[in-house]
Amino acid sequence: MPRSKTAFLFDLDGTLVDSVYQHVLAWKESLDAEGIDLSVWRIHRKIGMSGGLFTHILLRETGLEITRERVERLRVGHAAAYGRLAAAGSVKPLPGAKALLAWLTDAGIPWGIATSGRMETAGHNLEALGVDPSKVPVVTRDQVRHAKPDPDLFVTCAERLGMDIREAVVLGDSIWDMLAAQRARSLGIGLLSGGYGENELERAGAYRVFADPADLLLHIDEVAARS
Amino acid sequence: MPRSKTAFLFDLDGTLVDSVYQHVLAWKESLDAEGIDLSVWRIHRKIGMSGGLFTHILLRETGLEITRERVERLRVGHAAAYGRLAAAGSVKPLPGAKALLAWLTDAGIPWGIATSGRMETAGHNLEALGVDPSKVPVVTRDQVRHAKPDPDLFVTCAERLGMDIREAVVLGDSIWDMLAAQRARSLGIGLLSGGYGENELERAGAYRVFADPADLLLHIDEVAARS
Repeated sequence: MPRSKTAFLFDLDGTLVDSVYQHVLAWKESLDAEGIDLSVWRIHRKIGMSGGLFTHILLRETGLEITRERVERLRVGHAAAYGRLAAAGSVKPLPGAKALLAWLTDAGIPWGIATSGRMETAGHNLEALGVDPSKVPVVTRDQVRHAKPDPDLFVTCAERLGMDIREAVVLGDSIWDMLAAQRARSLGIGLLSGGYGENELERAGAYRVFADPADLLLHIDEVAARS
Repeated sequence: MPRSKTAFLFDLDGTLVDSVYQHVLAWKESLDAEGIDLSVWRIHRKIGMSGGLFTHILLRETGLEITRERVERLRVGHAAAYGRLAAAGSVKPLPGAKALLAWLTDAGIPWGIATSGRMETAGHNLEALGVDPSKVPVVTRDQVRHAKPDPDLFVTCAERLGMDIREAVVLGDSIWDMLAAQRARSLGIGLLSGGYGENELERAGAYRVFADPADLLLHIDEVAARS
Protein backbone atom coordinates (compact mmCIF):
# COMPACT_ATOMS: atom_id res chain seq x y z
CA MET A 1 0.00 0.00 0.00
CA PRO A 2 1.58 3.32 -1.01
CA ARG A 3 1.72 5.84 1.76
CA SER A 4 0.11 9.21 1.18
CA LYS A 5 2.34 12.26 1.24
CA THR A 6 3.14 13.86 4.54
CA ALA A 7 1.78 17.37 4.95
CA PHE A 8 3.91 19.99 6.72
CA LEU A 9 1.91 22.22 9.07
CA PHE A 10 3.87 25.23 10.27
CA ASP A 11 3.50 27.47 13.25
CA LEU A 12 4.45 31.07 12.32
CA ASP A 13 6.06 33.10 15.16
CA GLY A 14 9.40 31.65 16.22
CA THR A 15 9.12 28.90 13.59
CA LEU A 16 9.20 30.76 10.28
CA VAL A 17 9.56 34.33 11.54
CA ASP A 18 11.96 35.70 14.17
CA SER A 19 9.35 37.47 16.26
CA VAL A 20 9.02 35.71 19.62
CA TYR A 21 11.14 38.06 21.70
CA GLN A 22 9.33 41.10 20.32
CA HIS A 23 6.01 39.45 21.24
CA VAL A 24 7.38 38.78 24.75
CA LEU A 25 8.36 42.38 25.42
CA ALA A 26 5.14 43.64 23.81
CA TRP A 27 3.14 41.54 26.31
CA LYS A 28 5.40 42.81 29.09
CA GLU A 29 4.61 46.40 28.13
CA SER A 30 0.88 45.68 27.98
CA LEU A 31 0.91 43.91 31.37
CA ASP A 32 2.94 46.69 32.99
CA ALA A 33 0.43 49.25 31.74
CA GLU A 34 -2.30 47.22 33.44
CA GLY A 35 -0.27 47.08 36.67
CA ILE A 36 0.27 43.33 36.37
CA ASP A 37 3.71 42.26 37.54
CA LEU A 38 4.92 39.16 35.72
CA SER A 39 8.52 38.05 35.12
CA VAL A 40 9.52 38.20 31.49
CA TRP A 41 10.63 34.55 31.26
CA ARG A 42 7.18 33.44 32.40
CA ILE A 43 5.64 35.43 29.56
CA HIS A 44 8.12 33.82 27.14
CA ARG A 45 7.08 30.33 28.21
CA LYS A 46 3.43 31.10 27.44
CA ILE A 47 3.97 32.63 24.01
CA GLY A 48 2.46 30.54 21.24
CA MET A 49 -0.68 29.61 23.07
CA SER A 50 -3.89 31.47 22.36
CA GLY A 51 -3.61 35.10 23.49
CA GLY A 52 -6.97 34.87 25.21
CA LEU A 53 -5.99 31.69 27.03
CA PHE A 54 -2.63 33.23 27.93
CA THR A 55 -4.40 36.22 29.44
CA HIS A 56 -6.85 34.07 31.38
CA ILE A 57 -4.08 31.83 32.74
CA LEU A 58 -1.92 34.65 33.96
CA LEU A 59 -4.81 36.56 35.49
CA ARG A 60 -5.72 33.36 37.35
CA GLU A 61 -2.08 32.76 38.38
CA THR A 62 -1.70 36.32 39.64
CA GLY A 63 -5.05 36.20 41.41
CA LEU A 64 -6.54 39.12 39.49
CA GLU A 65 -10.12 39.37 38.47
CA ILE A 66 -10.78 38.32 34.88
CA THR A 67 -13.03 40.87 33.24
CA ARG A 68 -13.83 41.14 29.56
CA GLU A 69 -12.58 44.75 29.58
CA ARG A 70 -9.23 43.85 31.13
CA VAL A 71 -8.65 40.98 28.69
CA GLU A 72 -9.49 43.29 25.80
CA ARG A 73 -7.21 46.08 27.07
CA LEU A 74 -4.34 43.61 27.37
CA ARG A 75 -4.94 42.32 23.83
CA VAL A 76 -5.03 45.82 22.37
CA GLY A 77 -1.97 46.92 24.36
CA HIS A 78 0.02 43.93 23.12
CA ALA A 79 -1.00 44.45 19.49
CA ALA A 80 -0.04 48.14 19.66
CA ALA A 81 3.35 47.48 21.28
CA TYR A 82 4.11 44.63 18.86
CA GLY A 83 3.12 46.75 15.91
CA ARG A 84 5.60 49.38 17.03
CA LEU A 85 8.42 46.83 17.42
CA ALA A 86 7.61 45.16 14.09
CA ALA A 87 7.35 48.51 12.28
CA ALA A 88 10.89 49.27 13.46
CA GLY A 89 11.93 46.56 10.99
CA SER A 90 13.30 44.13 13.55
CA VAL A 91 11.00 41.23 12.61
CA LYS A 92 12.35 39.11 9.76
CA PRO A 93 12.00 35.57 8.39
CA LEU A 94 14.21 33.08 10.21
CA PRO A 95 17.26 31.74 8.35
CA GLY A 96 16.17 29.15 5.81
CA ALA A 97 12.43 29.80 6.19
CA LYS A 98 11.81 30.98 2.64
CA ALA A 99 14.15 28.34 1.21
CA LEU A 100 12.40 25.57 3.16
CA LEU A 101 8.94 26.59 1.94
CA ALA A 102 10.21 26.87 -1.62
CA TRP A 103 11.79 23.42 -1.35
CA LEU A 104 8.53 21.86 -0.16
CA THR A 105 6.60 23.56 -2.95
CA ASP A 106 9.10 22.32 -5.55
CA ALA A 107 8.93 18.81 -4.12
CA GLY A 108 5.14 18.83 -4.35
CA ILE A 109 4.81 18.37 -0.61
CA PRO A 110 1.67 20.03 0.75
CA TRP A 111 2.22 22.63 3.46
CA GLY A 112 0.28 25.29 5.32
CA ILE A 113 0.54 27.69 8.25
CA ALA A 114 -1.45 27.59 11.50
CA THR A 115 -0.90 30.42 13.98
CA SER A 116 -2.36 31.39 17.33
CA GLY A 117 -2.04 35.00 16.21
CA ARG A 118 -4.70 37.01 14.47
CA MET A 119 -4.46 38.17 10.88
CA GLU A 120 -3.81 41.74 12.11
CA THR A 121 -0.38 40.68 13.38
CA ALA A 122 0.20 37.69 11.08
CA GLY A 123 -0.32 39.69 7.88
CA HIS A 124 2.93 41.58 8.20
CA ASN A 125 4.85 38.34 8.82
CA LEU A 126 3.32 36.54 5.84
CA GLU A 127 4.33 39.41 3.61
CA ALA A 128 7.90 39.24 4.90
CA LEU A 129 7.87 35.50 4.15
CA GLY A 130 6.43 36.01 0.68
CA VAL A 131 3.45 33.80 1.48
CA ASP A 132 0.20 34.61 -0.31
CA PRO A 133 -2.76 33.47 1.87
CA SER A 134 -4.93 33.20 -1.24
CA LYS A 135 -2.67 30.41 -2.51
CA VAL A 136 -1.45 28.72 0.68
CA PRO A 137 -3.72 27.61 3.53
CA VAL A 138 -3.11 30.01 6.43
CA VAL A 139 -5.26 29.37 9.50
CA THR A 140 -5.30 32.14 12.09
CA ARG A 141 -6.83 32.45 15.51
CA ASP A 142 -9.78 34.31 13.97
CA GLN A 143 -10.89 31.17 12.16
CA VAL A 144 -11.12 28.55 14.91
CA ARG A 145 -12.87 28.27 18.23
CA HIS A 146 -9.81 27.29 20.26
CA ALA A 147 -6.19 28.13 19.51
CA LYS A 148 -3.14 26.20 20.80
CA PRO A 149 -2.60 24.08 22.85
CA ASP A 150 -5.91 22.86 21.38
CA PRO A 151 -5.35 21.08 18.07
CA ASP A 152 -8.03 22.99 16.11
CA LEU A 153 -5.61 25.22 14.16
CA PHE A 154 -3.54 22.33 12.86
CA VAL A 155 -6.58 20.12 12.22
CA THR A 156 -8.19 22.88 10.18
CA CYS A 157 -4.97 23.50 8.28
CA ALA A 158 -4.73 19.79 7.35
CA GLU A 159 -8.37 19.85 6.23
CA ARG A 160 -7.71 22.83 3.98
CA LEU A 161 -4.91 20.84 2.38
CA GLY A 162 -7.20 17.84 2.00
CA MET A 163 -4.79 15.80 4.11
CA ASP A 164 -5.20 13.53 7.11
CA ILE A 165 -3.75 15.25 10.20
CA ARG A 166 -2.52 11.85 11.39
CA GLU A 167 -0.24 11.70 8.36
CA ALA A 168 1.06 15.23 8.93
CA VAL A 169 3.98 16.72 10.81
CA VAL A 170 3.58 19.84 12.93
CA LEU A 171 6.54 22.23 13.01
CA GLY A 172 6.72 24.62 15.94
CA ASP A 173 9.02 26.36 18.40
CA SER A 174 6.87 26.15 21.54
CA ILE A 175 5.67 23.34 23.77
CA TRP A 176 2.10 24.40 22.90
CA ASP A 177 2.71 23.38 19.30
CA MET A 178 4.08 20.02 20.41
CA LEU A 179 1.15 19.41 22.79
CA ALA A 180 -1.33 20.36 20.06
CA ALA A 181 0.46 17.97 17.69
CA GLN A 182 0.08 15.13 20.18
CA ARG A 183 -3.59 15.88 20.68
CA ALA A 184 -4.08 15.79 16.91
CA ARG A 185 -2.08 12.52 16.67
CA SER A 186 0.39 14.09 14.29
CA LEU A 187 4.15 14.19 14.83
CA GLY A 188 5.72 17.29 16.34
CA ILE A 189 9.02 18.67 15.08
CA GLY A 190 10.55 21.27 17.36
CA LEU A 191 12.67 24.26 16.41
CA LEU A 192 14.93 26.07 18.88
CA SER A 193 14.41 29.40 17.13
CA GLY A 194 11.71 30.53 19.56
CA GLY A 195 14.06 30.23 22.54
CA TYR A 196 12.82 27.06 24.25
CA GLY A 197 15.44 24.48 25.18
CA GLU A 198 15.74 21.21 23.26
CA ASN A 199 14.69 19.13 26.25
CA GLU A 200 11.58 21.23 26.88
CA LEU A 201 10.39 20.51 23.35
CA GLU A 202 11.25 16.82 23.58
CA ARG A 203 9.40 16.48 26.87
CA ALA A 204 6.37 18.08 25.23
CA GLY A 205 6.48 15.37 22.59
CA ALA A 206 8.78 16.56 19.79
CA TYR A 207 10.05 13.49 17.98
CA ARG A 208 12.92 15.53 16.50
CA VAL A 209 14.37 18.97 17.22
CA PHE A 210 16.33 21.26 14.88
CA ALA A 211 17.90 24.68 15.41
CA ASP A 212 15.85 26.62 12.87
CA PRO A 213 14.33 26.26 9.37
CA ALA A 214 17.80 26.28 7.76
CA ASP A 215 18.88 23.37 9.97
CA LEU A 216 15.65 21.51 9.24
CA LEU A 217 16.12 21.95 5.48
CA LEU A 218 19.64 20.54 5.82
CA HIS A 219 18.16 17.42 7.46
CA ILE A 220 14.87 17.31 5.58
CA ASP A 221 15.26 13.66 4.56
CA GLU A 222 15.15 12.66 8.23
CA VAL A 223 11.59 13.84 8.70
CA ALA A 224 9.10 12.26 6.40
CA ALA A 225 9.75 14.46 3.40
CA ARG A 226 10.29 11.58 0.93
CA SER A 227 8.00 11.71 -2.01
CA MET B 1 35.87 19.71 62.18
CA PRO B 2 33.29 22.49 61.83
CA ARG B 3 32.57 23.43 58.25
CA SER B 4 33.03 27.01 57.26
CA LYS B 5 30.01 28.94 56.11
CA THR B 6 28.97 28.72 52.48
CA ALA B 7 29.22 31.98 50.59
CA PHE B 8 26.52 32.86 48.04
CA LEU B 9 27.89 34.41 44.86
CA PHE B 10 25.19 35.90 42.64
CA ASP B 11 25.05 36.73 39.00
CA LEU B 12 22.99 39.90 38.42
CA ASP B 13 21.04 39.99 35.12
CA GLY B 14 18.36 37.29 34.99
CA THR B 15 19.29 36.09 38.48
CA LEU B 16 18.43 39.04 40.74
CA VAL B 17 17.09 41.48 38.15
CA ASP B 18 14.57 40.83 35.35
CA SER B 19 16.66 42.29 32.56
CA VAL B 20 17.73 39.49 30.20
CA TYR B 21 15.14 40.00 27.48
CA GLN B 22 15.84 43.73 27.37
CA HIS B 23 19.55 42.95 26.97
CA VAL B 24 18.69 40.50 24.17
CA LEU B 25 16.70 43.02 22.13
CA ALA B 26 19.28 45.75 22.87
CA TRP B 27 21.98 43.53 21.32
CA LYS B 28 19.65 42.77 18.42
CA GLU B 29 19.24 46.49 17.78
CA SER B 30 22.98 47.09 17.96
CA LEU B 31 23.72 44.16 15.61
CA ASP B 32 21.05 45.26 13.13
CA ALA B 33 22.58 48.75 13.05
CA GLU B 34 25.90 47.13 12.13
CA GLY B 35 24.23 45.07 9.41
CA ILE B 36 24.85 41.79 11.26
CA ASP B 37 21.99 39.35 10.86
CA LEU B 38 21.65 37.05 13.88
CA SER B 39 18.54 35.24 15.12
CA VAL B 40 17.30 36.57 18.43
CA TRP B 41 17.32 33.20 20.21
CA ARG B 42 21.03 32.82 19.39
CA ILE B 43 21.69 36.18 21.06
CA HIS B 44 19.66 35.03 24.08
CA ARG B 45 21.78 31.91 24.49
CA LYS B 46 24.97 34.00 24.62
CA ILE B 47 23.75 36.57 27.13
CA GLY B 48 25.63 36.38 30.41
CA MET B 49 29.02 35.79 28.92
CA SER B 50 31.45 38.67 28.59
CA GLY B 51 30.13 41.23 26.09
CA GLY B 52 33.53 41.37 24.41
CA LEU B 53 33.69 37.58 24.12
CA PHE B 54 30.09 37.51 22.90
CA THR B 55 30.98 39.99 20.17
CA HIS B 56 34.08 38.08 19.13
CA ILE B 57 32.24 34.78 18.99
CA LEU B 58 29.40 36.03 16.88
CA LEU B 59 31.68 37.91 14.51
CA ARG B 60 33.63 34.68 14.07
CA GLU B 61 30.44 32.63 13.62
CA THR B 62 29.08 35.04 11.03
CA GLY B 63 32.44 35.23 9.26
CA LEU B 64 32.81 38.99 9.67
CA GLU B 65 36.08 40.74 10.28
CA ILE B 66 36.75 41.50 13.92
CA THR B 67 38.01 45.05 14.21
CA ARG B 68 38.45 47.05 17.38
CA GLU B 69 36.16 49.75 15.98
CA ARG B 70 33.36 47.32 15.15
CA VAL B 71 33.51 45.68 18.60
CA GLU B 72 33.41 49.11 20.21
CA ARG B 73 30.47 50.29 18.06
CA LEU B 74 28.53 47.16 19.00
CA ARG B 75 29.25 47.71 22.70
CA VAL B 76 28.17 51.34 22.59
CA GLY B 77 25.07 50.51 20.54
CA HIS B 78 24.00 47.85 23.03
CA ALA B 79 24.57 50.11 26.04
CA ALA B 80 22.53 52.91 24.44
CA ALA B 81 19.63 50.63 23.47
CA TYR B 82 19.62 48.95 26.88
CA GLY B 83 19.70 52.31 28.62
CA ARG B 84 16.61 53.34 26.68
CA LEU B 85 14.75 50.13 27.58
CA ALA B 86 15.81 50.32 31.24
CA ALA B 87 14.90 54.00 31.47
CA ALA B 88 11.37 53.10 30.33
CA GLY B 89 11.06 51.48 33.74
CA SER B 90 10.68 47.92 32.54
CA VAL B 91 13.68 46.52 34.43
CA LYS B 92 12.86 45.46 37.98
CA PRO B 93 14.18 43.09 40.65
CA LEU B 94 12.96 39.52 40.17
CA PRO B 95 10.34 38.21 42.64
CA GLY B 96 12.00 37.40 45.95
CA ALA B 97 15.37 38.92 45.06
CA LYS B 98 15.37 41.58 47.76
CA ALA B 99 13.87 39.19 50.31
CA LEU B 100 16.50 36.54 49.56
CA LEU B 101 19.40 38.98 50.00
CA ALA B 102 17.87 40.31 53.23
CA TRP B 103 17.43 36.74 54.50
CA LEU B 104 21.09 35.90 53.83
CA THR B 105 22.23 39.09 55.56
CA ASP B 106 20.05 38.34 58.59
CA ALA B 107 21.37 34.77 58.71
CA GLY B 108 24.95 36.04 58.69
CA ILE B 109 25.65 34.24 55.42
CA PRO B 110 28.21 36.04 53.29
CA TRP B 111 27.10 36.99 49.80
CA GLY B 112 28.25 39.10 46.89
CA ILE B 113 27.47 39.87 43.26
CA ALA B 114 29.61 39.06 40.20
CA THR B 115 28.39 40.30 36.83
CA SER B 116 29.71 40.19 33.26
CA GLY B 117 28.21 43.65 32.84
CA ARG B 118 30.03 46.90 33.39
CA MET B 119 29.20 49.31 36.18
CA GLU B 120 27.58 51.66 33.65
CA THR B 121 24.71 49.19 33.18
CA ALA B 122 24.92 47.40 36.54
CA GLY B 123 24.60 50.60 38.59
CA HIS B 124 20.95 51.08 37.73
CA ASN B 125 20.16 47.47 38.63
CA LEU B 126 21.96 47.62 41.97
CA GLU B 127 19.98 50.70 42.89
CA ALA B 128 16.71 48.93 42.04
CA LEU B 129 17.84 46.04 44.27
CA GLY B 130 18.80 48.35 47.12
CA VAL B 131 22.38 47.03 47.09
CA ASP B 132 25.11 49.45 48.18
CA PRO B 133 28.41 48.48 46.46
CA SER B 134 30.35 50.17 49.26
CA LYS B 135 28.97 47.61 51.72
CA VAL B 136 28.53 44.49 49.58
CA PRO B 137 31.21 43.06 47.27
CA VAL B 138 30.12 43.72 43.70
CA VAL B 139 32.55 42.58 41.03
CA THR B 140 31.92 43.90 37.52
CA ARG B 141 33.51 43.21 34.18
CA ASP B 142 35.64 46.36 34.62
CA GLN B 143 37.53 44.72 37.48
CA VAL B 144 38.72 41.42 36.06
CA ARG B 145 40.71 40.33 33.03
CA HIS B 146 38.22 37.73 31.79
CA ALA B 147 34.46 37.66 32.38
CA LYS B 148 32.26 34.53 32.22
CA PRO B 149 32.53 31.72 31.27
CA ASP B 150 35.94 32.28 32.87
CA PRO B 151 35.73 31.95 36.64
CA ASP B 152 37.56 35.22 37.46
CA LEU B 153 34.47 37.20 38.47
CA PHE B 154 33.28 34.62 40.99
CA VAL B 155 36.81 33.90 42.27
CA THR B 156 37.38 37.62 42.88
CA CYS B 157 33.99 37.93 44.58
CA ALA B 158 34.83 35.08 46.97
CA GLU B 159 38.21 36.68 47.72
CA ARG B 160 36.51 39.99 48.57
CA LEU B 161 34.36 38.08 51.04
CA GLY B 162 37.43 36.35 52.47
CA MET B 163 35.91 32.99 51.55
CA ASP B 164 37.17 29.93 49.72
CA ILE B 165 35.49 29.69 46.30
CA ARG B 166 35.44 25.89 46.69
CA GLU B 167 33.10 26.33 49.66
CA ALA B 168 30.83 28.72 47.78
CA VAL B 169 27.72 28.33 45.68
CA VAL B 170 27.30 30.28 42.45
CA LEU B 171 23.76 31.38 41.58
CA GLY B 172 23.04 32.18 37.97
CA ASP B 173 20.50 31.96 35.16
CA SER B 174 22.81 31.15 32.25
CA ILE B 175 24.94 28.18 31.29
CA TRP B 176 27.97 30.53 31.41
CA ASP B 177 27.46 30.95 35.15
CA MET B 178 27.27 27.18 35.59
CA LEU B 179 30.37 26.58 33.48
CA ALA B 180 32.28 29.27 35.42
CA ALA B 181 31.15 27.65 38.67
CA GLN B 182 32.54 24.30 37.55
CA ARG B 183 35.83 25.86 36.51
CA ALA B 184 36.07 27.48 39.96
CA ARG B 185 35.16 24.16 41.66
CA SER B 186 32.17 25.73 43.38
CA LEU B 187 28.60 24.46 43.07
CA GLY B 188 26.25 26.03 40.55
CA ILE B 189 22.61 26.72 41.35
CA GLY B 190 20.52 27.55 38.30
CA LEU B 191 17.52 29.86 38.08
CA LEU B 192 15.00 29.71 35.24
CA SER B 193 14.37 33.45 35.43
CA GLY B 194 16.75 34.24 32.57
CA GLY B 195 14.81 32.06 30.17
CA TYR B 196 17.05 28.99 29.83
CA GLY B 197 15.42 25.60 30.22
CA GLU B 198 16.00 23.49 33.33
CA ASN B 199 17.83 20.79 31.40
CA GLU B 200 20.19 23.26 29.73
CA LEU B 201 21.30 24.48 33.18
CA GLU B 202 21.64 20.95 34.53
CA ARG B 203 23.71 19.87 31.55
CA ALA B 204 25.99 22.85 32.19
CA GLY B 205 26.54 21.58 35.72
CA ALA B 206 23.80 23.05 37.93
CA TYR B 207 23.41 20.76 40.92
CA ARG B 208 19.98 22.25 41.61
CA VAL B 209 17.58 24.47 39.65
CA PHE B 210 14.86 26.81 40.96
CA ALA B 211 12.37 29.04 39.18
CA ASP B 212 13.55 32.39 40.54
CA PRO B 213 14.88 33.98 43.77
CA ALA B 214 11.48 33.60 45.46
CA ASP B 215 11.47 29.86 44.74
CA LEU B 216 15.05 29.55 45.95
CA LEU B 217 14.23 31.34 49.20
CA LEU B 218 11.35 28.90 49.70
CA HIS B 219 13.81 26.00 49.42
CA ILE B 220 16.84 27.70 50.94
CA ASP B 221 17.52 24.86 53.39
CA GLU B 222 18.17 22.51 50.47
CA VAL B 223 21.21 24.42 49.30
CA ALA B 224 23.91 24.76 51.89
CA ALA B 225 22.42 27.70 53.75
CA ARG B 226 22.62 26.08 57.21
CA SER B 227 24.60 28.13 59.67
